Amino acid sequence: MKLNDKGMLIVMSGPSGVGKGTVRKALFEKRGHRLDYSVSMTTRKKREGEVDGVDYYFVSREEFEQRIKENKFLEYAEFVGNYYGTPLDKVMEKINAGKEVVLEIEVNGALQVKDKMRDAVMIFIVPPGKKALYDRLRSRGTESEEIIKERVEKADREFKLAHYYDYIVVNDDVDNAADRIMAIIRAEHAKTERSIHKYKKLMEEK
Amino acid sequence: MKLNDKGMLIVMSGPSGVGKGTVRKALFEKRGHRLDYSVSMTTRKKREGEVDGVDYYFVSREEFEQRIKENKFLEYAEFVGNYYGTPLDKVMEKINAGKEVVLEIEVNGALQVKDKMRDAVMIFIVPPGKKALYDRLRSRGTESEEIIKERVEKADREFKLAHYYDYIVVNDDVDNAADRIMAIIRAEHAKTERSIHKYKKLMEEK
Repeated sequence: MKLNDKGMLIVMSGPSGVGKGTVRKALFEKRGHRLDYSVSMTTRKKREGEVDGVDYYFVSREEFEQRIKENKFLEYAEFVGNYYGTPLDKVMEKINAGKEVVLEIEVNGALQVKDKMRDAVMIFIVPPGKKALYDRLRSRGTESEEIIKERVEKADREFKLAHYYDYIVVNDDVDNAADRIMAIIRAEHAKTERSIHKYKKLMEEK
Repeated sequence: MKLNDKGMLIVMSGPSGVGKGTVRKALFEKRGHRLDYSVSMTTRKKREGEVDGVDYYFVSREEFEQRIKENKFLEYAEFVGNYYGTPLDKVMEKINAGKEVVLEIEVNGALQVKDKMRDAVMIFIVPPGKKALYDRLRSRGTESEEIIKERVEKADREFKLAHYYDYIVVNDDVDNAADRIMAIIRAEHAKTERSIHKYKKLMEEK
């Protein structure tokens, strides 16, 4: 029996190259959860095979900017001329239906979410060592020295933002990291601040 | 890899009759933990077969009262003419050695611990329903109506103290409750405030 029936917003972030996507994938492969993705909204053109409401919500630039004005995004950013954002209403629908919505996003977006939704569970994924991450960024593909240098500097800035998060999870082993996140979700449901309302109702029983 | 190597103090409490002892037992039977008991100190006489430092630390009334003055107990109480207490130094030794010290105690003692040790993990165990607990208190043994009434009233007062705790765990099923507590311990280790120091050291790596 759970005292907290509502779902939660789980924000997974961390420095570039830490393997957020892989951890998220391993997390969704675990059994016995009510995890759900958040579908982003974008102004970029729909590509062949993409489905509106599944891959993205495709909207016009006008509609997106109207939504920004109405404060309807948990976070958004512009990237190569297109907007990308997390629609607040869609996330809330899922949370109210008891699902845990997992957002795997860059550090900038994560900090916007924290501002908008105080009870989001903020998880910072870190590598077991800094050097390992740098090596990985350096060995990825065949980019120029300049691009690699930029990436390392970006990761370096992102490393310093751990204190904005509720939890720090080391990605030493993907499955291990996913297990830690499952434990965090379970523990968060038991937190007094999330469960005291339903507990009080239970206590009204004679 | 754990970012927090230190152990923690886990306080398990809850209204009388909720089954704290059974949950604790199930918890210790789980694998892969570093849980440890706290041995209480007492002024009562050692009984045959009891071992000092294992069953209790047996001390004189003078020594116990001296320790009270020196603020050396996490909590203590007098019961039928004897003192019983949790020695702070012994608990700290275990925590510094990386063990999770589990204290399964009455509500009064738990609130004393919370005052003395701010980073203790406070877990309130509750029954799935209030009536179930009352029925259990009423059916236990063959006590007089008066004693039963006192018990129910005590549980009733204790029910109201949930908001002093970090977590509320429903004892709907003993094994389930123990699993929830394991998840809480795991999540607490990943908490930023517990792990940021070691994380910062990791980050000093070049």
